[in-house]
Amino acid sequence: MKIVVDAFGGDNAPVEVVEGAVLALAKKKDLTVVLTGDQKRISEILNGRTERVEIVDAKDVITNDDTPTLAIRQKKDSSLVRAFDLLKENDDVVGLVSAGSTGAVLTGAILKIGRIKGISRPALCPILPTVKKDKTVMICDCGANVDCKSEHLLHFAIMASAYSSIMSGQESPKVALLNNGAEEHKGNELCKETFPLLKKLPINFVGNVEARDVMSGDVDVIVTDGFAGNVLLKSVEGVASGMSKLIKQEAKKNVFSMLGALMMGRFKGLKAKMDINKYGGAPFLGCKKLVVKTHGTANREVIKNTILQVAKLYESGLNEKIESLVLKMTESLGEEKTGGANG
Amino acid sequence: MKIVVDAFGGDNAPVEVVEGAVLALAKKKDLTVVLTGDQKRISEILNGRTERVEIVDAKDVITNDDTPTLAIRQKKDSSLVRAFDLLKENDDVVGLVSAGSTGAVLTGAILKIGRIKGISRPALCPILPTVKKDKTVMICDCGANVDCKSEHLLHFAIMASAYSSIMSGQESPKVALLNNGAEEHKGNELCKETFPLLKKLPINFVGNVEARDVMSGDVDVIVTDGFAGNVLLKSVEGVASGMSKLIKQEAKKNVFSMLGALMMGRFKGLKAKMDINKYGGAPFLGCKKLVVKTHGTANREVIKNTILQVAKLYESGLNEKIESLVLKMTESLGEEKTGGANG
Repeated sequence: MKIVVDAFGGDNAPVEVVEGAVLALAKKKDLTVVLTGDQKRISEILNGRTERVEIVDAKDVITNDDTPTLAIRQKKDSSLVRAFDLLKENDDVVGLVSAGSTGAVLTGAILKIGRIKGISRPALCPILPTVKKDKTVMICDCGANVDCKSEHLLHFAIMASAYSSIMSGQESPKVALLNNGAEEHKGNELCKETFPLLKKLPINFVGNVEARDVMSGDVDVIVTDGFAGNVLLKSVEGVASGMSKLIKQEAKKNVFSMLGALMMGRFKGLKAKMDINKYGGAPFLGCKKLVVKTHGTANREVIKNTILQVAKLYESGLNEKIESLVLKMTESLGEEKTGGANG
Repeated sequence: MKIVVDAFGGDNAPVEVVEGAVLALAKKKDLTVVLTGDQKRISEILNGRTERVEIVDAKDVITNDDTPTLAIRQKKDSSLVRAFDLLKENDDVVGLVSAGSTGAVLTGAILKIGRIKGISRPALCPILPTVKKDKTVMICDCGANVDCKSEHLLHFAIMASAYSSIMSGQESPKVALLNNGAEEHKGNELCKETFPLLKKLPINFVGNVEARDVMSGDVDVIVTDGFAGNVLLKSVEGVASGMSKLIKQEAKKNVFSMLGALMMGRFKGLKAKMDINKYGGAPFLGCKKLVVKTHGTANREVIKNTILQVAKLYESGLNEKIESLVLKMTESLGEEKTGGANG
């Protein structure tokens, strides 16, 4: 199995990305990694560790300052565009990993790879930790589609259900709709229209969830439009980091004491628990091939996890599961509710 | 000045509500409080402390299980409806405080009190703490209007700007639009349409803010539709409480040691810093008279703060400021952009 990795995407590229690839290769013996980016620099970092590694030279880099659509169209010799070209043109390349610009990764996936038949809008689906031990929750969509119709949310629901089932091993993950109240009649027009349709899908839909209960660990998948999902994801990040700062300030008051030192130690354990990145990356669900965006600050450990995540999703047949659910959904809802949303 | 308080709204009613009123009266000598609810029970709690307190008997209570519109229309002898009637019918009653059902308070405010001329949609505007010392941020709207047009967001912006200016004493509070990116071109259709109009308002509009920066303390007011605002507010609550649980779990591992005990002590200080309630309640901006909803779990201290907040808003002429800004806004944008949104 071959996975292509954008070696020059992200804040810690290329060193951490290349080292992450080496770690993934050590973990998985049937894996080959294709690294895209400045060949000379990548070779230097690899420093002779070339088993099951291929390098495809790319002189350019897409940054967060680039406009995604322009960058994908014009920076043809960038590490990301080269990676997408490899993914598109080679049957044996099964997935792509990038820690680069989210917008560019999403744009590249749509322009170069395209959608699974029947899926109107691919969606970004990151994982969050919960207060329950070893229990996570997936949020779909988190920013790829900021204006949604109910048909889109139905697709997000089946895609994320299939994804969650693979990652957690549960047969029927609990899927909930993000809403401003728990009762069925609550919500904006989009939620009110989507709720009854979600009940008809071949998934385990458990009703509405409020944003305050996202981290409760009671549900496995949260479906929402990309705007609200983005607000949710980023406020979780923001509060976690804000509280971290406050905790550190408190701890510093005792920094010369044993208490301060011990508090900081304890806090590191807590921070690890809250660290979203350790779960790997966020897949762009609904693309013809696996595309996983990992955090811009990803270190080698996160890159390794993300590459292994792509391998797992491929081996578990994520896209086949999604295709099969789309067919079942069409049967459940009737052609008119699912066919119209394409494009 | 008279303020009416729904003595039977909230989880800790009536004891904490009545005691909160007594605390507020002790702080402010020109204040009279009208308490609505079971007269006998209120008198028992007051236990002779009757100076500047009036009681209006109400036998019924509206709970969170009631449907707001039905409850306001049918439970005419409830503490909340009696409070709204008093606010409506008496010129000397300047504001209302309730810790009861948010939906019922909003519905009562609209049905019984009505809107300030020129304001299309009143909006709920709670205060959040930030990482900067003594710096807060206001979010408008947080759930009163889940489907919004850009005109509504413009009204939220001027109302919350006026409110923030009174609460913080700043002449020109920084107002930002909640969005999924910092750049002007970012956002869903609503944000893209609203951004250029916000620039024309007679307020200090500073651009987009992402949800992760809400607690940064860099802006004073965040404008958003009520659905996204609700997601933001509740996820902040959820993560703060989720992290609290994790911190407590960590601390418990050392519960018999000095460290554990000291950590819990430190943490209480931190929790106080994160406690949204200490700032009082969330006003329902844009009503003809002041209506402030405080948290269902409010204790006497929070009730006291909320009553004093209403007094401050009245004395500072919040509604007059809003009316004047609406007029200026109409001039800035032209009649067609502001007149059409009424209703």
